[in-house]
Amino acid sequence: MQKLPAVITRLAQKFEALPGIGPRSAQRLVFYLLHNPQSELEDFADKLLALKKETCLCSKCHQIAESDPCDICTDAGRDRSVMCVVEQPLDLLALERSEKYHGLYHVLHGCIDPLNHVGPDELYLMDLLGRLDGVRELILATNLTMEGEATALYIKQLIEKKGRTDMKVTRIGHGLPIGADIEYADGLTLARALEGRRSLD
Amino acid sequence: MQKLPAVITRLAQKFEALPGIGPRSAQRLVFYLLHNPQSELEDFADKLLALKKETCLCSKCHQIAESDPCDICTDAGRDRSVMCVVEQPLDLLALERSEKYHGLYHVLHGCIDPLNHVGPDELYLMDLLGRLDGVRELILATNLTMEGEATALYIKQLIEKKGRTDMKVTRIGHGLPIGADIEYADGLTLARALEGRRSLD
Repeated sequence: MQKLPAVITRLAQKFEALPGIGPRSAQRLVFYLLHNPQSELEDFADKLLALKKETCLCSKCHQIAESDPCDICTDAGRDRSVMCVVEQPLDLLALERSEKYHGLYHVLHGCIDPLNHVGPDELYLMDLLGRLDGVRELILATNLTMEGEATALYIKQLIEKKGRTDMKVTRIGHGLPIGADIEYADGLTLARALEGRRSLD
Repeated sequence: MQKLPAVITRLAQKFEALPGIGPRSAQRLVFYLLHNPQSELEDFADKLLALKKETCLCSKCHQIAESDPCDICTDAGRDRSVMCVVEQPLDLLALERSEKYHGLYHVLHGCIDPLNHVGPDELYLMDLLGRLDGVRELILATNLTMEGEATALYIKQLIEKKGRTDMKVTRIGHGLPIGADIEYADGLTLARALEGRRSLD
């Protein structure tokens, strides 16, 4: 049986280590790259090497950014009385794409997940408490999973213990997504949609 | 709206240029890579840079290989009286995985496709004729597509013009794949399966 050149196997292994890429796709990507000029491969390699060198974590909100503090934390135009807690940097980007939120953020970089040995100390959770001066509303936008819900509850209890009665703690709305069909919605989503019903003005 | 660090966007564009990776997956891959140590990114970059430097095209069969001629063309144990013509390097690998073929190969690097301006001269087709001394059977294993069929027919006519009556030209068998359900098979596959029926011994 013909052996593949070692470098093809080794590069395919690199692609295979990425999420959502299986062994066959990895091999196809490598054979595709073989048709690219060397300059293109050099360009790809340069960008890989620069990735971590040209990014940093904002020391305030912990978003991945080019500068510390990041451009949201330094933006004088943002509403500093509202803060939104999210699990991941990509969640922040999704909320920014909605163009409906103009407050600050706090990125936890995960959620409390005891089965995978992630407790509050493994997250950027405790320093959230030091950022709440002047904040009147804290929106908990962790995911609607067991772990995301537990994390939201944990943060709510932390704030209560602090006795911050002047600050509202809210949970991002859950319900039917736009375009969804009630017939095909799952029970949990429908239950949340009923709980979250609003009066029509 | 928060702008992503430029290097993230640029690296995501590199992934997006690969087949089967959309803009969202590309972004997810980049954020995944951010969690890797720099040494891992350096390793990935090294392998990208080495890809074309450590591979070559075999000047005989045109397979992508580490040495020229490749290890199949130099293997004294292979049957030199049979040659199998395939479209792509990955097709050769698939046939090798079957462990049922022990002859030589010829990789065309494509098929005749007039709509995309690929004619016989854009393929490694003409030098196939110079490799047929001593070959008693030429198996045409191009794909069962319009273009693959046209390529097989073109090669068959070339051989006929050469007057090589001592050499058999065959087409790889088409029919139902193992495990397939006749009920769900398409008409073309069933037609080919009927044409290719064999007597039970």
